Parts: sequence; C-alpha cells; structure tokens
Amino acid sequence: MTAPALTGPALTGPAPLPLAELHASLADPLLDAMTFLNEVTTRYPGAVSFAPGRPYEGFFEPEDVPAYLDAYLDHLAATGLSRDAIRTTLFQYGPTKGVIADLVARTLANDEGLAVAPEALVLTVGAQEGMLLTLRALCAGPDDVVLVSSPCYVGVTGAARLLDLATVPVPEGPDGGPDPAAVQAAAQAVRASGRRPRALYVVPDFANPSGTSMPVEARARLLATAAAADLLVIEDNPYGFFARDAAERPTLKALDRDRRVVYLGSFAKTCFPGARLGYVVADQEVAGPGGRRSLLADELAKLKSMTTVNTPALSQAVIGGMLLTHDCRLRAANAPATAHYAANMAALLAELERHFPAAERARLGLSWNVPEGGFFAVLTVGFAADDAAMERCARDFGVLWTPMAPFYPAGGGEHRLRLSISSLTPGQITDGVGRLADFIRAETAHAVAR
Amino acid sequence: MTAPALTGPALTGPAPLPLAELHASLADPLLDAMTFLNEVTTRYPGAVSFAPGRPYEGFFEPEDVPAYLDAYLDHLAATGLSRDAIRTTLFQYGPTKGVIADLVARTLANDEGLAVAPEALVLTVGAQEGMLLTLRALCAGPDDVVLVSSPCYVGVTGAARLLDLATVPVPEGPDGGPDPAAVQAAAQAVRASGRRPRALYVVPDFANPSGTSMPVEARARLLATAAAADLLVIEDNPYGFFARDAAERPTLKALDRDRRVVYLGSFAKTCFPGARLGYVVADQEVAGPGGRRSLLADELAKLKSMTTVNTPALSQAVIGGMLLTHDCRLRAANAPATAHYAANMAALLAELERHFPAAERARLGLSWNVPEGGFFAVLTVGFAADDAAMERCARDFGVLWTPMAPFYPAGGGEHRLRLSISSLTPGQITDGVGRLADFIRAETAHAVAR
Repeated sequence: MTAPALTGPALTGPAPLPLAELHASLADPLLDAMTFLNEVTTRYPGAVSFAPGRPYEGFFEPEDVPAYLDAYLDHLAATGLSRDAIRTTLFQYGPTKGVIADLVARTLANDEGLAVAPEALVLTVGAQEGMLLTLRALCAGPDDVVLVSSPCYVGVTGAARLLDLATVPVPEGPDGGPDPAAVQAAAQAVRASGRRPRALYVVPDFANPSGTSMPVEARARLLATAAAADLLVIEDNPYGFFARDAAERPTLKALDRDRRVVYLGSFAKTCFPGARLGYVVADQEVAGPGGRRSLLADELAKLKSMTTVNTPALSQAVIGGMLLTHDCRLRAANAPATAHYAANMAALLAELERHFPAAERARLGLSWNVPEGGFFAVLTVGFAADDAAMERCARDFGVLWTPMAPFYPAGGGEHRLRLSISSLTPGQITDGVGRLADFIRAETAHAVAR
Repeated sequence: MTAPALTGPALTGPAPLPLAELHASLADPLLDAMTFLNEVTTRYPGAVSFAPGRPYEGFFEPEDVPAYLDAYLDHLAATGLSRDAIRTTLFQYGPTKGVIADLVARTLANDEGLAVAPEALVLTVGAQEGMLLTLRALCAGPDDVVLVSSPCYVGVTGAARLLDLATVPVPEGPDGGPDPAAVQAAAQAVRASGRRPRALYVVPDFANPSGTSMPVEARARLLATAAAADLLVIEDNPYGFFARDAAERPTLKALDRDRRVVYLGSFAKTCFPGARLGYVVADQEVAGPGGRRSLLADELAKLKSMTTVNTPALSQAVIGGMLLTHDCRLRAANAPATAHYAANMAALLAELERHFPAAERARLGLSWNVPEGGFFAVLTVGFAADDAAMERCARDFGVLWTPMAPFYPAGGGEHRLRLSISSLTPGQITDGVGRLADFIRAETAHAVAR
C-alpha cells in the first residue's frame, strides 16, 4: 500500500520514523491481512462478499435517530429531570460508567435472565473498549497471561497486543468453545513456566470466526474448569441473539454462581454499529488497601478515564431511546433480524449442499460446519485458502471471503475460509455460492495438478 | 468510598480480587484526588464550584441535534451519495480514521491557518484516545520516555500510566509552557540514564491546570529545542479558541516546518463534550519494512482498531453537521462562547483584585496569574491547599476548587489551587470569589496560628 499523497507542507525532515522504532504491534500480520482484504474488496466492488461480519443494513432508517433521541429525552423528563439537567446529560462530560446502565440492566434481565446491578455495568465505546479495559485490569504484570480460544476473534488478540500482554491459544473443541481439558492443560503449562494464567476469553455463541457454539452442558463444564484452574472467564456475546433456539442458550454469566464471569456486551448487532456502544458486566469484588472493597466495574471506570474519559452521551441517548421504544426487550425487537440471518444461514447451507453432494464433497476434500445461528460458517477446502487464493477468487469468480489462518494465534487454519452471511440477501447468497462452487472446483483441480 | 449495594446473586466466591493483583495504575493518587473532589461536590451541591473544567452549557439546545444530523445527511446527499450509502455511513462500522476528515481539515484551514491533508487526520473518541494512540505509537519499549510539562494535564499522565510508559516532568517556565532549557536538560538526563526521550507533551494555550500560554517567540524556540534534542512534540490544543487575541496565537503545528508536531484537537469545548469527538493530525512519514512508506495517521488507525475500532459515526455526523452549519468556521461560531469565557475571566480577576488589594495580598502571601483567556487561573496561597482545606472550604464557605498538587508528577504545587471559570456565570463568580476571600482570610489566619 502506498502512502496517500499529501497536500500539506513539503516534507523536509525529520527523517521518517522507522517503523521498527514504533511499537511492534504496528506491524501485525493480522492487520496486514485485514488491510489486504479491504484493498481487494475495494478493487472488486462488484464481487459478492462473504467477508464482512457487519449486520444487515435494511432495518436502519436515518429518520429513526431523532425519534430514539426524543424517546430518551422524554424518559429523562418523565423521571423528573429538569430541562437543564437533561441538557447536562446529553451535552456534557458524563459519569465514566455511563448514563443508561439502568436501561441496559433491564434489557439483560428481560432478554438473558441476568440479574445485574446497574452499578456493576460500565458503558464502553464498543465491546472492544470493554475488552481492552478488562484485560488491562486483570493482567497486572509481565508474568500475567490470558488464555484465548483458537481460532480467536481479532479484537481480543489486538487489545492484548496493544497492552503487551501475552496470550496463549486454547484449541476449540469439536462442539465449539475451548475444550475444557485443553484449558486445564494450558493453565497448568502457563503455571509450570512461572507465569500466571489470569483469565480465559471465550465467545460461547456463534463465535467469530468459527461460527460454532457451546452446548449447554459444556458451558457448566467450562465454568467448573475455570474455577478449578482459578481463572476468570471473559465472555464475549455479540451474536447470542441470532439463534433459532435463543431461549435455550443460557450465557455463561447466567450460569455463573460465583462471579467468575466478566461479561462483554455489544449493541452493534442488536441496535446498530454506528453508535459504537458496548458494555461490561463486572460484578467482581475487589479488595483495596485497608480492606476497602470496590466493584471491578469501578476499577474499570478508572481505567476508562485514561482511554476515552466517557462513552458519548449521544450514543447512549440514541441507544437508550431504542431500548425504551422496545420496552427493554431487544430479542423481540430483533425478531425480523433474527429471521433474516436464519434464512441467510439456511440458504448458505442449502446451496453448499446443492452444489456439493456428499460424494463430490469427499472427492474435493471439502467440508463445512453447520452453525445453528449467528453470522459465520467455516469451509475446509482441499487447497491453501490464503490471500493469493482469495484474490484469485475475487478477480476470476467475483466472490470474496476471509482466510482463516490469521485467526489462529499459534498457526493452523491454512485450508479454511470464513463465510459471513450477515450483510447479504438470500439472492446474493445463492449467486455467491454458485460462484464460490466454481472457484472451489477450479482451485482444487489446480491444487491437484500442481 | 464504600462499594455500591448489589442486587445480583449472592457473593459466594471467588475471593475478592486483591487490588495489588490488579494493575498499579488502578491505585492512582490523582484518580483518588478526583474521586474525592467529586464526592465533596456531591455532598455540597449548593456550593459555587470553581472545580469543573467543563464548558458552559447555556449554548446547547437538544433541538439542535437533529438539525445538525440533517445538515450532515443533506451534505452527504449533495455530494452524490445514495440513500443506501448514507445509511451505511451513519449506521455501520466505518473507516477507522473516520468519515469527516475533510470537514475537520477545512475547519483547521479556516480557523488555524493549518494546511492539513485529510489523510493525515484520525478522528478519535475525544482527544484522550488520540493521546493514548500517539503515546502508544511513539513509545516502543521500556526505555522510551515522554517528557511532559509540569504541572500537567491528567489525561496524558493517565494514558502513559495505562501503557506503563515512563513520563519525565519538565517545569513550566515563567511565561508558561515548558522552559526550553529545562527541556534540553531533561532530554539529556534521560539519554544519560540510557533511556530514549521520544516526545514532549505540551499545551501551549491556556494550559490545564495552570492557565498559562506560551508567547509566540517561545513557541519557535521550543520547536528549535525539540529539533535539537530530536524530540517529537505532542501539541494538545483544547482551549486555544478562547482568547481575546486568538488570531495572534499560532499553534505550534502552524509554526512547524518539518512535521515535528503531532497535533491533538478536540470538539469538546468548541462544539460539545457529549459527542466525545477529538482528532489527531499525524502527518509524519513512517518507514516500514522494504522501504514502504506510510503516514503516522495510518499507523495510529491500526492501533485504534485495538481500542475502539472506530469513532461513533453518530458523533461524527452531528459534529460534521455543526461544522457545515457554521461553514467550517468554529472561531466565528464560538464568538459568544469566547466572549462569555472572557467576561468570566475578567470578573474573576477583577473580584480577586477587589477583595485583595496589593498590600493585603502581600500580607496574606497570596498571588495569582493573569491568563489571557481559557478556562483556568491559579492562586498561590499562604496555606496548604490540600483535600482537607478544599473540604473545609466547601463545608464552611460553600465554594469549591481543585488542589494543584496532584497535577505535579514530581511533587510541588502544595500551596496552589486551580480556579475554573468556564461553567459559571459572572454573578456566580462574584458570589464565589466573595466566599473564597472569606475562606482564604480564615485559613491563612489559622495557618499562622498553628
């Protein structure tokens, strides 16, 4: 990638900053992979893209924003706030923990059966900031390590890299989620090396990138394993809503009896990403000097004063209005979105099945998983699903996907690719899988010929 | 401070997280001081508060928000974006560097005479995130050090602490701004200790907390000193607008001929804080592997993908609409605010003068600086201006202020207090200075008696 042309003053010095002198995190292979994917996407704008993990846009209307804002301001007025106090809430610096914790707590109670005290919540700029704050709070020194399920969402490994925090990958089990035995083994190995495993990061529902989910009994087992290994669990749940059997999927936090789980939530998929609103449930007790007790949420807020000071009141007001408009029940409000994603996932799986009957699948060394919801599925193919293959697929077949290898911190996934169905229509999926099938046949033939 | 009552599940374990096991930054004396100040503020709601550094609220109206949003969406339509593309801009994940860089660049050209390429801009969640990203990019390892003017804004020392980055305080000179000789000496001392001074953080205009500004000739001298010492300069400019002689105050960035200055901007005071919108101008060239060149702005964006992914489109749209509404000329738009702050500062200084004529001032060991604008002035008093004094002042005299000592990273400021005039009216200032005068007389008498 070449640097954009500059129209500023001529470049007379100092000498360019050597990248090696900037921090190592700036030269990240995963970021390079994402940058390359974005470049290819820009070069082939007509391609059907199974790449982006963003929500479908058809449910958003600009006219809704002022209506949501009004709903929130009316709510403030109804709770007795004066016009001046309302102005302060909307326009000023606000409490570091946020202003809509009560509405988020009501929504968590309604939608997840979670009894969360508003005081245990911190509103964040996306779940990403919550991840950063949580890692920073839990990992105290160079010996601290966080375990991450592998393949792993890039946000958590990125936040760890920003903080110079070591991550140790734990392979996902066959059912999805980190394998309990592997968690135990990883924690032991970390301890044996003189370091401290502090927490385990996991996406139990429809993980990004693998699309897999943990069975209910596996969730209880994982919590027991974490307790035995003295690990906190960081549960990230952006996709849990979008399932056929949503009510039967308790979060780890809902199963958590001893405050072992720090829960990361996001409104990016259930409301919209442009508000960049997420939150952390951190109800752990912290013992300070002189026996003083506080909540982990309050300690996270202190750290937040060093990252973004507070979460935009504007975003909180609009999302707060959206929660109020839907009676703090986003599951019901998202029923059309859930149906849309379910139809898309069904279309993807049906089209794959149609193009690749079992016999041909075996011949091509092809397989895929069957997610029960969410945005992602993973294909295992008989050739290297790398950047070069992705670019050939875009150029010659007009379809885009995401190579999986960069999601494996310890290597692996070279023959896997991620397909996201979230931002497409069923028609685009039918078209896209047709093109993808042609690519897979051509590429497998070339791989055999090579 | 006691932990808030929890309504969640009963606390059966794990054991409370020992604070010592959380990172040291969580037990920060400055944060403790701010927490205490907030507590006292809550306990004495009727007190006249010279404490908060927030802008005056009287210029904000909730009805303006939808109008600004509309102005931005109309602008997007006028530039040829389809309704679908507008929806994507407002609601989706967006470019990490932001979507309104062109409008910010136009505003910087109009208001500061800065020729900035939009590509060199990164929109951030407040200037605070810009600070964090800049420090993270510039400081590569345990030997890297950032010099900060002292007394120093808490945001930069906080961000450094979050990153485990060492800061070295450089005393402000008599005219405001870090003394060039002290900068040179500090850089040499750091080098002599085997570490690398990478950058100098400075607020040239109406610094928080000191209220002082650098004379123009001192600015050129500081840039020359930075060049000689091979330091980048991080210029933070939230208050530069609010001056009688604003046009005569070139930013360091405007004087910068060799891209030595990374410029942090904020819309918190010129628009409103609730959008949490700031930006970084980072037009430095970075040399990567294989001779690849990039802009520091692009490297900051990579780091930003690890902190907040992107800045809320909602905030950018509303502030973008505000910029468009004011023809990208915030100086003109802020004329009423500038006049308000100037009148307040004049009232503060006149009332101090009235209550403490020169002779009495000398007798009491009292003095203050005379800022030419901005939000802050500093009083030097004949007693310890600590938390206990602040609380006595709130309890017995109904007036609040901020102790200065926590702003000095290397100690100092024990007899100083910060007065902020930004969120008051001239009437409140007259009333408040009267109460403050009574407190100062009483406290000085006690100090002498002790």
